[in-house]
Amino acid sequence: MTTPNQTPNLPVILTGDRPTGPLHLGHFVGSLRNRVAYQHSYQQFVMLADAQALTDNMDDIGKVHRNVVEVALDYMAVGIDPALTTILIQSQIPELAELTFYYLNLVTVARLERNPTVKEEIRQRGFERDIPAGFLTYPASQAADITAFKASLVPVGEDQIPMIEQTNEIVRKFNRMYNCAILVEAKALVPEIGRLPGIDGKAKMSKSLGNTINLGATPDEIRAAVKQVYTDPLHLRVQDPGHLEGNVAFMYLDAFDTEKAALEEMKAHYVRGGLGDSIVKKRLEVVLQEMLAPIRERRELLAQDRGYVMQVLKDGTMKAREVAARTADEVRAALGLSYF
Amino acid sequence: MTTPNQTPNLPVILTGDRPTGPLHLGHFVGSLRNRVAYQHSYQQFVMLADAQALTDNMDDIGKVHRNVVEVALDYMAVGIDPALTTILIQSQIPELAELTFYYLNLVTVARLERNPTVKEEIRQRGFERDIPAGFLTYPASQAADITAFKASLVPVGEDQIPMIEQTNEIVRKFNRMYNCAILVEAKALVPEIGRLPGIDGKAKMSKSLGNTINLGATPDEIRAAVKQVYTDPLHLRVQDPGHLEGNVAFMYLDAFDTEKAALEEMKAHYVRGGLGDSIVKKRLEVVLQEMLAPIRERRELLAQDRGYVMQVLKDGTMKAREVAARTADEVRAALGLSYF
Repeated sequence: MTTPNQTPNLPVILTGDRPTGPLHLGHFVGSLRNRVAYQHSYQQFVMLADAQALTDNMDDIGKVHRNVVEVALDYMAVGIDPALTTILIQSQIPELAELTFYYLNLVTVARLERNPTVKEEIRQRGFERDIPAGFLTYPASQAADITAFKASLVPVGEDQIPMIEQTNEIVRKFNRMYNCAILVEAKALVPEIGRLPGIDGKAKMSKSLGNTINLGATPDEIRAAVKQVYTDPLHLRVQDPGHLEGNVAFMYLDAFDTEKAALEEMKAHYVRGGLGDSIVKKRLEVVLQEMLAPIRERRELLAQDRGYVMQVLKDGTMKAREVAARTADEVRAALGLSYF
Repeated sequence: MTTPNQTPNLPVILTGDRPTGPLHLGHFVGSLRNRVAYQHSYQQFVMLADAQALTDNMDDIGKVHRNVVEVALDYMAVGIDPALTTILIQSQIPELAELTFYYLNLVTVARLERNPTVKEEIRQRGFERDIPAGFLTYPASQAADITAFKASLVPVGEDQIPMIEQTNEIVRKFNRMYNCAILVEAKALVPEIGRLPGIDGKAKMSKSLGNTINLGATPDEIRAAVKQVYTDPLHLRVQDPGHLEGNVAFMYLDAFDTEKAALEEMKAHYVRGGLGDSIVKKRLEVVLQEMLAPIRERRELLAQDRGYVMQVLKDGTMKAREVAARTADEVRAALGLSYF
């Protein structure tokens, strides 16, 4: 019942999240909304990347464990349907570690150190020379995840494109060295709508910056967050002309308000002058409350039936493991590691 | 029948070989002889480290595949008894890759780069900056092998002691961070008898130097090798005094001739003068022919029953996998990665 009946001819998408905190509006715009659409036209695997999350959270494993279920609740609450999408827990598929192990032989240390995504992330985390080896090598692990499911499409942000390129280098090298077509090259699927800014106007909405609105936020939390939403600091008096650039209230309305004509009118009025921020925020609050209410309700209902959620994760993981195990069998055979 | 009935209270030994070529007299002296003895007083796991062999043989996988069976034949021919020792194939136990994956998060790139064994091996192979990541990280893989079987003793050469130290660092770090005693520290068991020199007098007998006598050598191959054995280059005339230092013929006799009194007499005669190299080599040939004949015969018999050999490897690997899977379960649980 809960395992997807996927049509094998559809292209495969692999996507997922590091379960280190609850998902928020930024995830909704950047990925979750797309996944709900993709599941009708692709074979979609959504991975709770707990093993990858550990690469820099070995000292806070409780956070990772806890958030596996929290993120799964977010997935199902926004409409990722276990009957259409395979939701899996990375750590429960040892074949992914096994593929990583072999791919590490196909990539040099120098190449990993040159990976721009890894470089930037190492810089952000301040690791310097004390990089955990698992962190430096995680592109090989990502290549394992992508190739295990023979994904040809991987939705990623602009900044993750070098990761996909590194996966494809491994794919081409493996297929060439072992004269086979076992591994499949993947294409980065970069969403058209860019990142949602944080409520404080910072470019990125991120739990570590404390500028998020979580998908499970209560009505009060939504109200409080909207009050703090950054608008136009030069728009001091209602009658003054307001600016739309960098105005988070209008960026959110652009992303979520479905009444586009009324929104355009409101924007014109704001730019002309005579429209106060409080009116704009009132509209934003209505839009967000309406959008998040059913998500929150579904989330609360699901949270009460943890047994069901765990069964969904178990079924999805078992289904995904079968696929990954077939790929691992093929890889092992190509490497001359089949004996029995 | 072929799986060992091990007494759980006995200390566990893990040992093994990278299957990249047939084993030779150097292996016999340095490790195989000891393993035949150890199997009576320890729980012994002997690993065919094919996955590790790939870390620098991705371009010659056939060599690794072929030699898994060749080395297994060597093991059984010298008297490693599948009823007493668990012989396993590393690549068939994905839990070893899984443990490696997690241990990579517990060791920094800088620490791996400082490992003297790895440094020396990287230098020998001329990798420079183009080290395969799997090669740099193989100490984590070795830690996985050792800890998976909870081995407390690991027979290694002097040069491998830093590897055991690195394993123990991972063991201590893991047990401390997760407040447990799951992983077991290992002790290096350095054999008293040092390395056997090559027939050319070089310090190391090694197939790449072409100075070996293989365990499966034919009588003719043994005869030819003994003729080439390096003796005393200053011992030009029979009546001259000869030297024992660096004299490979006598070093081999020391290692293999069981008639110690006669050997001591021969040495005294040689040093005194009046004993020709040809007499010494004749004795050496007798000793080696006698020692290797039964090994070669057992090897040939076993080689004719490949089905039996594969069954031994399969049984041993399955038995070993159960043990490794239990450890992986414990490690996953300690890391908060148990969900179902």
